[in-house]
Amino acid sequence: MSYILEPSLILENTSTGNELLDRYITVRNRSKQICAPLQTEDYVVQPVADVSPPKWHLGHTTWFFETFILKPNVIGYQDFNAEYNYVFNSYYESVGVRVIRTNRGNLSRPTVQDIYAYRDYVDAAMENLLRCEVSAELHELLVLGFYHEEQHQELLWTDIKYILGHNPLLPAYAENYPGKNSMPKNDAVFIPIKSGLYEIGHQGEGFYFDNELGRHAVYLPDFEISSEPVTNQEYLEFIQDGGYQNFRFWHAEGWDWVKNNEIKAPLYWHFIDGEWCNYTLGGIKKIDLQEPVCHVSYYEASAYASWKGLRLPTEFEWEVASEKLNWGSVWEWTNSAYLPYPGFVTAPGAIGEYNGKFMVNQMVLRGASVVTSPNHSRKTYRNFFQTSARWQYIGIRLAK
Amino acid sequence: MSYILEPSLILENTSTGNELLDRYITVRNRSKQICAPLQTEDYVVQPVADVSPPKWHLGHTTWFFETFILKPNVIGYQDFNAEYNYVFNSYYESVGVRVIRTNRGNLSRPTVQDIYAYRDYVDAAMENLLRCEVSAELHELLVLGFYHEEQHQELLWTDIKYILGHNPLLPAYAENYPGKNSMPKNDAVFIPIKSGLYEIGHQGEGFYFDNELGRHAVYLPDFEISSEPVTNQEYLEFIQDGGYQNFRFWHAEGWDWVKNNEIKAPLYWHFIDGEWCNYTLGGIKKIDLQEPVCHVSYYEASAYASWKGLRLPTEFEWEVASEKLNWGSVWEWTNSAYLPYPGFVTAPGAIGEYNGKFMVNQMVLRGASVVTSPNHSRKTYRNFFQTSARWQYIGIRLAK
Amino acid sequence: MSYILEPSLILENTSTGNELLDRYITVRNRSKQICAPLQTEDYVVQPVADVSPPKWHLGHTTWFFETFILKPNVIGYQDFNAEYNYVFNSYYESVGVRVIRTNRGNLSRPTVQDIYAYRDYVDAAMENLLRCEVSAELHELLVLGFYHEEQHQELLWTDIKYILGHNPLLPAYAENYPGKNSMPKNDAVFIPIKSGLYEIGHQGEGFYFDNELGRHAVYLPDFEISSEPVTNQEYLEFIQDGGYQNFRFWHAEGWDWVKNNEIKAPLYWHFIDGEWCNYTLGGIKKIDLQEPVCHVSYYEASAYASWKGLRLPTEFEWEVASEKLNWGSVWEWTNSAYLPYPGFVTAPGAIGEYNGKFMVNQMVLRGASVVTSPNHSRKTYRNFFQTSARWQYIGIRLAK
Amino acid sequence: MSYILEPSLILENTSTGNELLDRYITVRNRSKQICAPLQTEDYVVQPVADVSPPKWHLGHTTWFFETFILKPNVIGYQDFNAEYNYVFNSYYESVGVRVIRTNRGNLSRPTVQDIYAYRDYVDAAMENLLRCEVSAELHELLVLGFYHEEQHQELLWTDIKYILGHNPLLPAYAENYPGKNSMPKNDAVFIPIKSGLYEIGHQGEGFYFDNELGRHAVYLPDFEISSEPVTNQEYLEFIQDGGYQNFRFWHAEGWDWVKNNEIKAPLYWHFIDGEWCNYTLGGIKKIDLQEPVCHVSYYEASAYASWKGLRLPTEFEWEVASEKLNWGSVWEWTNSAYLPYPGFVTAPGAIGEYNGKFMVNQMVLRGASVVTSPNHSRKTYRNFFQTSARWQYIGIRLAK
Repeated sequence: MSYILEPSLILENTSTGNELLDRYITVRNRSKQICAPLQTEDYVVQPVADVSPPKWHLGHTTWFFETFILKPNVIGYQDFNAEYNYVFNSYYESVGVRVIRTNRGNLSRPTVQDIYAYRDYVDAAMENLLRCEVSAELHELLVLGFYHEEQHQELLWTDIKYILGHNPLLPAYAENYPGKNSMPKNDAVFIPIKSGLYEIGHQGEGFYFDNELGRHAVYLPDFEISSEPVTNQEYLEFIQDGGYQNFRFWHAEGWDWVKNNEIKAPLYWHFIDGEWCNYTLGGIKKIDLQEPVCHVSYYEASAYASWKGLRLPTEFEWEVASEKLNWGSVWEWTNSAYLPYPGFVTAPGAIGEYNGKFMVNQMVLRGASVVTSPNHSRKTYRNFFQTSARWQYIGIRLAK
Repeated sequence: MSYILEPSLILENTSTGNELLDRYITVRNRSKQICAPLQTEDYVVQPVADVSPPKWHLGHTTWFFETFILKPNVIGYQDFNAEYNYVFNSYYESVGVRVIRTNRGNLSRPTVQDIYAYRDYVDAAMENLLRCEVSAELHELLVLGFYHEEQHQELLWTDIKYILGHNPLLPAYAENYPGKNSMPKNDAVFIPIKSGLYEIGHQGEGFYFDNELGRHAVYLPDFEISSEPVTNQEYLEFIQDGGYQNFRFWHAEGWDWVKNNEIKAPLYWHFIDGEWCNYTLGGIKKIDLQEPVCHVSYYEASAYASWKGLRLPTEFEWEVASEKLNWGSVWEWTNSAYLPYPGFVTAPGAIGEYNGKFMVNQMVLRGASVVTSPNHSRKTYRNFFQTSARWQYIGIRLAK
Repeated sequence: MSYILEPSLILENTSTGNELLDRYITVRNRSKQICAPLQTEDYVVQPVADVSPPKWHLGHTTWFFETFILKPNVIGYQDFNAEYNYVFNSYYESVGVRVIRTNRGNLSRPTVQDIYAYRDYVDAAMENLLRCEVSAELHELLVLGFYHEEQHQELLWTDIKYILGHNPLLPAYAENYPGKNSMPKNDAVFIPIKSGLYEIGHQGEGFYFDNELGRHAVYLPDFEISSEPVTNQEYLEFIQDGGYQNFRFWHAEGWDWVKNNEIKAPLYWHFIDGEWCNYTLGGIKKIDLQEPVCHVSYYEASAYASWKGLRLPTEFEWEVASEKLNWGSVWEWTNSAYLPYPGFVTAPGAIGEYNGKFMVNQMVLRGASVVTSPNHSRKTYRNFFQTSARWQYIGIRLAK
Repeated sequence: MSYILEPSLILENTSTGNELLDRYITVRNRSKQICAPLQTEDYVVQPVADVSPPKWHLGHTTWFFETFILKPNVIGYQDFNAEYNYVFNSYYESVGVRVIRTNRGNLSRPTVQDIYAYRDYVDAAMENLLRCEVSAELHELLVLGFYHEEQHQELLWTDIKYILGHNPLLPAYAENYPGKNSMPKNDAVFIPIKSGLYEIGHQGEGFYFDNELGRHAVYLPDFEISSEPVTNQEYLEFIQDGGYQNFRFWHAEGWDWVKNNEIKAPLYWHFIDGEWCNYTLGGIKKIDLQEPVCHVSYYEASAYASWKGLRLPTEFEWEVASEKLNWGSVWEWTNSAYLPYPGFVTAPGAIGEYNGKFMVNQMVLRGASVVTSPNHSRKTYRNFFQTSARWQYIGIRLAK
């Protein structure tokens, strides 16, 4: 039912052994830093199927290194615990039975302490390995493991926010948190782009996911795209104009979603004592009207655009215009379905197993958010979610 | 949850008054002819939400003419029954409350006889009206009403097949039925098409739906497309090779669908006494191996292509190659999501209310089937269904 | 999920061959008379799982005679249609696969005409058989068949009422209908009954179901029981006093039922233009305040009693007091669970298969209603339904 | 949907102030001792709706003393945290909004440490209060609070067993645990009891729940009852004889339950390497054939009895025979529905709110189990559960 960030083919092969070790340590520490302010109990729960318990993310990313790197490459390597494959496998059907996703929140064991011990055990073995020379193939797998963990770091942020933001006590995560000090605001202008044949997809050096591969030409007619994402103030006008009560702005499926779930505002918004507030990782606050609206579904993004008499950009328009846009605080829904680029090919084996398996009934998001890991911001990056997803940091940009 | 063919803007305005009357009579008679072999009881039931009772189709298409043509244009027109608006409205939220779709099969009244009386009543008033001169605007609405009813005629075929084909007695509809004598078969060859900028969308005279509008350039790389749809024999090899048991060929969502619904073959296929048979409108028959495979979901089409190491064409590839293809016995899943063409605009008012409302989480089908109404076959026609839909006459064409 | 009246052991053996034939004809005709005012379409639908299509009742009762009497007793008997066993078996797991109950409303075939032909065919064979002498064993089975069909006749009434009463056109069944002319009303008084040891259960001649068997002593303390069932007027006071809004009167499970189903009044009640009306088999009418309240669940009956500061009688209190009570227009919920009497034994074979299988999570009803068949009114008769059932003619009597 | 032990009227008033204080400390410590072997994570999860997280039990029992004793009786008492009422209220609708039961497992906050601090805070205030003289009314409430917490202690045992016993690692709770050293076994004999009028219900001094009140005469015919509960060995014969595959032994509702849930053995039984094992609080062990069978539903108990050609006793038979029975290791399903005794009256106010609210669709259990708190074993005690409940320590006794 939902999206899991799964790794795919990588093509980066320039860092040296020492750089790899440093990078390993950096990536692995970052996951722990994200979790540092949590109470033990916060690591355990799974309020909805889309949200995984933080301890599961910590175990799953560790399991990845153990399964795909240590076991095949370290002679005599002993599993930390043979049963963990059963617990921390996510969707790799070729590697063994996995715990059904909705049950993750029922597991009190392994404990948080067990999982940190598991991390230490695997980290020690990995660091040992990385002190030796690594083959090109192993190098690739390692970099994939880094990106995999960095993707789960974004999910750690969003899942922690969901867990705390749906607790009746609405506890703050910390005084400082991503997005606390928002970016300087500019006035939105519509940027005109000329029609023509444009090249789309990854090019050149550096890491990329296979869904970005297959650079290809796309013809675009003239269009204009807003320089800024839609703000809370602009979205509030939609709410106040009865946007959630008027079926005309909505897809049929979106309208059903609004009614069945009694949606009246973005996720985390609360109307308290006559004022709109929202839950942030710093606790409940009054809405900041200048901030980009965040935590909206594709249905809401599309309805907002329809109410404005405008539309969402396609992912191609976004990529072509990207250098002229102010982006990076929220992911942005595009009006492109998540489908393969021409020439897309599934990689063989367990790692490549799932490259194309999510390419149905999901929409592409472009950009990045305040909780996106550093290496995951680039203009060709294709993020994707189901149309009802709201727990990610997702906003809206308009085109015409 | 599912697709309803809903009318949209039309642009055809050349027939004269007499021609309109003739055409009205022809269209309206055709619906009755389709239902002629039915027993009264067959008109009533709704085995699943996607399938509407035939009597509902007969009433709904009549209600369309009464609501959008007679009431606004005939002074002093008396409703046949004021409560029918409640019963026969489908998805036109702006016209009034509608009967929830899954409840249609619980309605024993109005009876089939009542509905035929309703048709006669409306037909008399319409024929009266059509003997006078009609305005251009009314002309458009009329033509729209014809196309609307013709779309429901295809649904009548598919819904009747579902109702009879899911009855434990598996009764035949009639000795003769659409698709009984299949088209002459040719050997499939892959037709190469050169890369280039192609014009996509409707052009010139004749009726078209607004989703075909906005003729625009699309750049296509080199590709090849099969001249023929996939046959039962070819699909049987996929079944016999364990295609339904191997997750590698499937989207994650498709694999869940296979397992949750215990899918083992296309809809209407039965394995009887060691042989594959399928239900046809003529009753249960042995599979005709030369026929195009039919009644498959998008998941199955996509998994079959993956098993073959090939892919489905995009809707643009299909349109560009269409004149070289043998098509028309089955609709064909493309690998294009149903999304607006550049410049798509929603028409105002109740008629235009839903033009774009289905443009989410559905895939485009191209071509036509043996039960498609005569005016609904053209190379720019965009049909669309949800990825699990199988009760339509849908097959597979491969590309690479 | 729901209750089906299923036959059980009988002990009546006094009628002669001719009497049996006469009775057979009478019983069989009565089912047809009940259905005479229906349109063909009314025979087909199943709006909820509890309600079976009338044509199913007609087929099932016929199937009973064919399966249990003709096939084992008439040499060379030819099935009318071998597939009907699949369609018309209800819950007799030992006789073969049955159509899952919620699917009955999806079956357009066999048609109503087919089923009447089936009845004629079986009736001819039965009448032939009944012109010969019948064994004691066969005699018993025959009488069981009569009672079985008579039980389904009550269900025919309640299911027809549900089908028509849930159609948006609210069509009347007929000008005259059971309960149209209500019984003369008496003022309710509380009748005191002395404590003591009372005999409970069937005694003596005549037909009875095995759940009435095992006449046994029950000690009752002093109690008082109302001479009359609760009226619409009395129940309206409960509604107007906020009875449906106050959890204090309800079982926890009942309160969940009220909230989940948004219950605000008995089934078939509608608040129209400021007045309470209810659907009757004669169409929509203003509430008759003197009538016994009808179509209430056990939860409602119990909540009403709690609101009054009183209670429902046990089935034993009811039976002991029965001769002093005015009863027969509505079944009455008792506060006794449906459990076996001491010494209850399950009969062997298919007929006896289900004697005790419903004795869990259902409550006993005593009395009879205006749609109860003539032979099904006696003071020891134990009717039973699940606590949420409302489509039967069920009311309330109070005790203290 | 399920049963919560809720307090009701008590009548015990003999202990002095010091005794009350001692008893308070003893009861409160016992809850902590039960939880002592848990990891923090074990306190948090709720694998199914029936099972509450241990931290919730610890909070809820504390909330009870704070809400019903401290707030009304201690002038100037300050809530530990005003929001806890929202979190720890269970079903007391008159005291405020409650957290919906199935969501308890999504709450990471308040943490376990917070809840222990809450307990300490309330305990200090309570101990202060108990050093003064208490009124008779307060005395009653106190004793009720003790019994309430003791009831939750049994749930703590059963919920902890469920949480650990459904973890894929199947961790043991502790080396020593209730029921580890089973009772000496005797051969089962059927004890005959003479017919007659027997007094049922509580009599005399001591605490009792209001559902035991209303001592009254019940007439019982002759019966025999087994001196011992059914053993694992006896139950294994039922399994091996195909008991779970034969519908004849089951209620219709029970048979649906078996099929829908694929039930093949009691809860916690696993067939491992050709042998039946079961999860105990000491970990996975081979079945002890001499032990009473445990963790069976009413459906299973009833099917077993039916397979034996016997029946379950009524709660009255059990109570009359109780002094001759070996009981106390498992609760025992009776064939009596949980209904009020004659003269049962609901107490006013929040405490009495729920006295009778569970008296529908549940069955009475008699006896006690190895995890029952010391004061909760007496021959008149009426325990009750829904017919599908298996996570309690429940077994079977036969009668005829």
